[in-house]
Amino acid sequence: SKYEYVKSFEVEDKLMPSTWIVVRIDGRHFHQFSDEHEFEKPNDKQALELMNSCAEALLEEFKDVVFAYGVSDEYSFLFKKTSEFYQRRASKIVSILVSFFSSLYVMKWKTFFPLKELKTIPCFDARAICYPSTKIVRDYFSWRQVDCHINNQYNTCFWMLIKSGKTKREAQDILKGTQTPEKNEILFQLGINYNELPAMFRKGSCVFRDKVEEIVKYNQDGDPVKRLRTKVGTVHRDIIGDTFWREHPEILSD
Amino acid sequence: SKYEYVKSFEVEDKLMPSTWIVVRIDGRHFHQFSDEHEFEKPNDKQALELMNSCAEALLEEFKDVVFAYGVSDEYSFLFKKTSEFYQRRASKIVSILVSFFSSLYVMKWKTFFPLKELKTIPCFDARAICYPSTKIVRDYFSWRQVDCHINNQYNTCFWMLIKSGKTKREAQDILKGTQTPEKNEILFQLGINYNELPAMFRKGSCVFRDKVEEIVKYNQDGDPVKRLRTKVGTVHRDIIGDTFWREHPEILSD
Amino acid sequence: SKYEYVKSFEVEDKLMPSTWIVVRIDGRHFHQFSDEHEFEKPNDKQALELMNSCAEALLEEFKDVVFAYGVSDEYSFLFKKTSEFYQRRASKIVSILVSFFSSLYVMKWKTFFPLKELKTIPCFDARAICYPSTKIVRDYFSWRQVDCHINNQYNTCFWMLIKSGKTKREAQDILKGTQTPEKNEILFQLGINYNELPAMFRKGSCVFRDKVEEIVKYNQDGDPVKRLRTKVGTVHRDIIGDTFWREHPEILSD
Amino acid sequence: SKYEYVKSFEVEDKLMPSTWIVVRIDGRHFHQFSDEHEFEKPNDKQALELMNSCAEALLEEFKDVVFAYGVSDEYSFLFKKTSEFYQRRASKIVSILVSFFSSLYVMKWKTFFPLKELKTIPCFDARAICYPSTKIVRDYFSWRQVDCHINNQYNTCFWMLIKSGKTKREAQDILKGTQTPEKNEILFQLGINYNELPAMFRKGSCVFRDKVEEIVKYNQDGDPVKRLRTKVGTVHRDIIGDTFWREHPEILSD
Ligand SMILES: Nc1nc2c(ncn2[C@H]2C[C@H](O)[C@@H](COP(=O)(O)OP(=O)(O)OP(=O)(O)O)O2)c(=O)[nH]1
Ligand SMILES: Nc1nc2c(ncn2[C@H]2C[C@H](O)[C@@H](COP(=O)(O)OP(=O)(O)OP(=O)(O)O)O2)c(=O)[nH]1
Ligand SMILES: Nc1nc2c(ncn2[C@H]2C[C@H](O)[C@@H](COP(=O)(O)OP(=O)(O)OP(=O)(O)O)O2)c(=O)[nH]1
Ligand SMILES: Nc1nc2c(ncn2[C@H]2C[C@H](O)[C@@H](COP(=O)(O)OP(=O)(O)OP(=O)(O)O)O2)c(=O)[nH]1
Ligand SMILES: O=P(O)(O)OP(=O)(O)OP(=O)(O)O
Ligand SMILES: O=P(O)(O)OP(=O)(O)OP(=O)(O)O
Ligand SMILES: O=P(O)(O)OP(=O)(O)OP(=O)(O)O
Ligand SMILES: O=P(O)(O)OP(=O)(O)OP(=O)(O)O
Ligand SMILES: [Mg+2]
Ligand SMILES: [Mg+2]
Ligand SMILES: [Mg+2]
Ligand SMILES: [Mg+2]
Ligand SMILES: [Mg+2]
Ligand SMILES: [Mg+2]
Ligand SMILES: [Mg+2]
Ligand SMILES: [Mg+2]
Ligand SMILES: [Mg+2]
Ligand SMILES: [Mg+2]
Ligand SMILES: [Mg+2]
Ligand SMILES: [Mg+2]
Repeated sequence: SKYEYVKSFEVEDKLMPSTWIVVRIDGRHFHQFSDEHEFEKPNDKQALELMNSCAEALLEEFKDVVFAYGVSDEYSFLFKKTSEFYQRRASKIVSILVSFFSSLYVMKWKTFFPLKELKTIPCFDARAICYPSTKIVRDYFSWRQVDCHINNQYNTCFWMLIKSGKTKREAQDILKGTQTPEKNEILFQLGINYNELPAMFRKGSCVFRDKVEEIVKYNQDGDPVKRLRTKVGTVHRDIIGDTFWREHPEILSD
Repeated sequence: SKYEYVKSFEVEDKLMPSTWIVVRIDGRHFHQFSDEHEFEKPNDKQALELMNSCAEALLEEFKDVVFAYGVSDEYSFLFKKTSEFYQRRASKIVSILVSFFSSLYVMKWKTFFPLKELKTIPCFDARAICYPSTKIVRDYFSWRQVDCHINNQYNTCFWMLIKSGKTKREAQDILKGTQTPEKNEILFQLGINYNELPAMFRKGSCVFRDKVEEIVKYNQDGDPVKRLRTKVGTVHRDIIGDTFWREHPEILSD
Repeated sequence: SKYEYVKSFEVEDKLMPSTWIVVRIDGRHFHQFSDEHEFEKPNDKQALELMNSCAEALLEEFKDVVFAYGVSDEYSFLFKKTSEFYQRRASKIVSILVSFFSSLYVMKWKTFFPLKELKTIPCFDARAICYPSTKIVRDYFSWRQVDCHINNQYNTCFWMLIKSGKTKREAQDILKGTQTPEKNEILFQLGINYNELPAMFRKGSCVFRDKVEEIVKYNQDGDPVKRLRTKVGTVHRDIIGDTFWREHPEILSD
Repeated sequence: SKYEYVKSFEVEDKLMPSTWIVVRIDGRHFHQFSDEHEFEKPNDKQALELMNSCAEALLEEFKDVVFAYGVSDEYSFLFKKTSEFYQRRASKIVSILVSFFSSLYVMKWKTFFPLKELKTIPCFDARAICYPSTKIVRDYFSWRQVDCHINNQYNTCFWMLIKSGKTKREAQDILKGTQTPEKNEILFQLGINYNELPAMFRKGSCVFRDKVEEIVKYNQDGDPVKRLRTKVGTVHRDIIGDTFWREHPEILSD
């Protein structure tokens, strides 16, 4: 039609070829959302596992996503460098991932919160970022995990102080300017060994495809017949050091 | 932390100030999704009303969205020219709208399809487009409504021919190269007056805020006390001509 | 060749259709360049006329440029809204204009400075900016002319104080925090009527095509035969008010 | 002033950090420019040396440019990956380089063409492209040198055929569809050994900083006192293979 010229106002938004694409989604107003749904403080196991379950389903659907890292109300998804998903169009990639994740979050809610009604509409923002080298991709995930650690340590201290009877104001004043050793000391005083807290809280969650041995059937002798299968799974590991990446070289391989 | 430099790879993506922003979302693989959920052909009243209901809720939430137009698996949302929603950052705007809409779509599914299970994950793509003048914004919506008309007329003919016993191939051959009058003739032969089909199918759906008279209470005499209130509602109107826009000057006013 | 894939790293950089494009160029390190070439302070008539002459030649060459405004070491060029110059590719437009201007500046140098050698390499930066409405385009040029006025008034005062024997430090201190009336007073004390300074210094320079009457030939009676011809010319006028634009409606017409 | 808001329409255009930036400039309408200035066909030694001289001066001025490659009417400039030149703003980088080059081209014209007047205004377009890895940067320059070879071989054949008395049409027909060996055969028939043509024509020109031994002074015995100095120079070498890059590891080092 004579109106079709309006399509020419759409701008090409291709992401640079041969770079790693990270899509980070983050819950919108999740401070409020967590309150409304009475998430446990500072970490709600169910809420985090809901996020992880959505991320796993997302990796099942989108084969070009090779790794994901989640913490708090956010998740980062890594596309392999050579991905041609939607010809690398930024708004396609960003919108499809965040839409898919949002739908899943609502669909899976009842599984993780069988007794809680979904009262308000969960919503996530999203952005795409390109990284030119694996080194910088590693630094990206280190950034998120350091953030996880710092926030989690602070929040754990804070809520333990609250539980111990302090006001929010008092807890803030006590923590102001403290470093890691002092925070550990505070936790120790309150009877908490930080390193014994669940790894999911301390390390966040890594989702990726892994080779797993699977029992396909049992033969006549009753012996299991096994096969290697690729399966999406979640672990809570340090991703700042080299160990994890050395154990999973396929993630960052070209 | 020393990793924070990775944030510098994020690119500023502000949309041009003083322009109209349209965000169009479109169902991903809805050909398949419609099949899987046995949507009526060519138009499923419930599916369309689910979309409209989501759009209405979206306008209730985001005050800067002044108008929306929906047809088939797509919806276009218009931000007023002066909007400073998320400082006009494209990926924020696009991701938040599509995420919100997707969550709503799942949450409202049961209301519109009480007997149908949601079998697969609904997913939408989204993009933002800027338009520098109201004239071009008008042309944008005309473009979508002309598209609605052309597709709907074709699809109505097609599925009526199928119902009348033709194969898909035969129906396609009959329709190839036909213009509006010929299609109307075909429909007439099959006993359909195109203009009597539901306006929602022929015109699509317009969502916007309107002044409505509301009965606040009844006074002692039993007379209703009315008040003008702004309410989001949906109509199925021609938006190509001037009439609609003249009747609702506030939509495109600065 | 197998290397051609590298071209895919070039990014599309089309400027929004139906918007006014302004390309502003600005002398790089012209503080230094002006010193090295002993430009008169605060305004060097020859230097400004060289700039104007380059701008005129640029308008002669590029028909889509409908207006230009220059002050100090900068020039702004306005493309009409409908221009399809290099399909509106930003880097083509920016680079070609600034390259053309730079070449001209060197080529014309001798004409305006017959006794001065060009000692260092004149260099300009450039950028393209889109404006969605004529109102904002007008505001753009008002911005530049207000800037011209403020800088020129300050600089005129400053250099007059220097001429009158003040040190740079003293001159700065005298002018700190002064408003227009106080500056006029200072100039008056030094025997200068600001409004009698050359309009080119006070108003900057406007370059555009204008209809001029031209004598084509003389007929037998010796009477001149005239014809209207379009010619690029320069004027020094107020462009903040409406008068100029009303007198030249073709500049901002669609 | 109240007009300053117009500055908010400028868009941030930073190039991705930690990537190699290539700025390629290319003569505008140089087909015509070469004709107007009667450049020798297919290669004008003086014209190419003028280009090289401008490129050398450019590297002297802009320390972040580590390498340049020129052929025909084009030159590519490579910025090191870590460059923060103008905070990596694309339009600053593109405009400043092309402006500087253009000014130089005019300023140096007389040196290379003492007997030819500059009749028209030399003008170059320019663009910036980012490359995420050294491998792709190498491929970029290979792309340009392969292009140099293919064009030069074709053009050499073409103009030799013309010189031998063929019409342009006949020459084109002879060359249509020929491969390298056939072209070499044609040249051989015309008494030309392609490999004995000047390296500048066959390989293009590489400009970069190199350590050179320089005689600083002579001591009492009359022996020269030498020192290593970094100097910008031009060579005509193969840059597709590894040899050149191995000999100059500092160019592509981080
Ligand atoms: N109680 C509780 N709150 C959580 C949990 N995970 C995340 N949150 C809350 C705490 C934070 O206030 C919020 C995440 O911080 P953000 O910086 O993303 O802020 P928020 O989402 O409120 O705003 P935004 O729209 O992202 O700018 O989510 C949890 O497991 N338990
Ligand atoms: N049966 C039925 N199908 C519908 C209805 N509304 C939309 N659809 C289907 C028909 C079309 O195949 C599809 C919309 O066309 P699109 O061009 O958006 O294609 P699709 O979503 O399959 O692919 P995409 O991911 O958008 O490229 O949705 C409906 O009311 N009833
Ligand atoms: N003496 C003299 N100087 C002038 C004249 N026109 C411009 N200039 C000088 C004064 C300013 O220092 C300079 C223009 O200011 P800018 O803000 O453009 O600074 P500059 O070009 O030095 O740096 P830039 O590379 O643009 O950031 O040019 C003139 O007519 N006479
Ligand atoms: N005679 C002669 N011509 C040359 C020489 N170097 C370049 N040229 C001419 C031949 C080509 O027609 C032209 C370069 O080709 P381009 O593809 O850059 O085309 P042109 O500059 O005409 O158009 P453009 O504005 O870049 O699209 O320059 C030379 O050394 N001698
Ligand atoms: O961690 P981010 O990137 O979300 O940082 P932020 O401070 O939330 O900023 P924004 O979401 O506005 O980019
Ligand atoms: O109508 P659109 O813009 O969705 O057009 P399309 O043909 O679906 O193209 P795409 O979604 O790939 O932009
Ligand atoms: O007047 P401008 O836009 O040149 O402003 P500036 O302060 O010189 O900034 P820049 O040239 O760095 O955009
Ligand atoms: O070699 P290039 O990139 O200049 O290729 P082109 O065919 O000249 O195209 P354009 O200059 O229009 O990008
Ligand atoms: Mg955020
Ligand atoms: Mg959040
Ligand atoms: Mg968060
Ligand atoms: Mg589409
Ligand atoms: Mg669709
Ligand atoms: Mg659709
Ligand atoms: Mg500047
Ligand atoms: Mg300057
Ligand atoms: Mg300036
Ligand atoms: Mg070109
Ligand atoms: Mg050229
Ligand atoms: Mg060329």
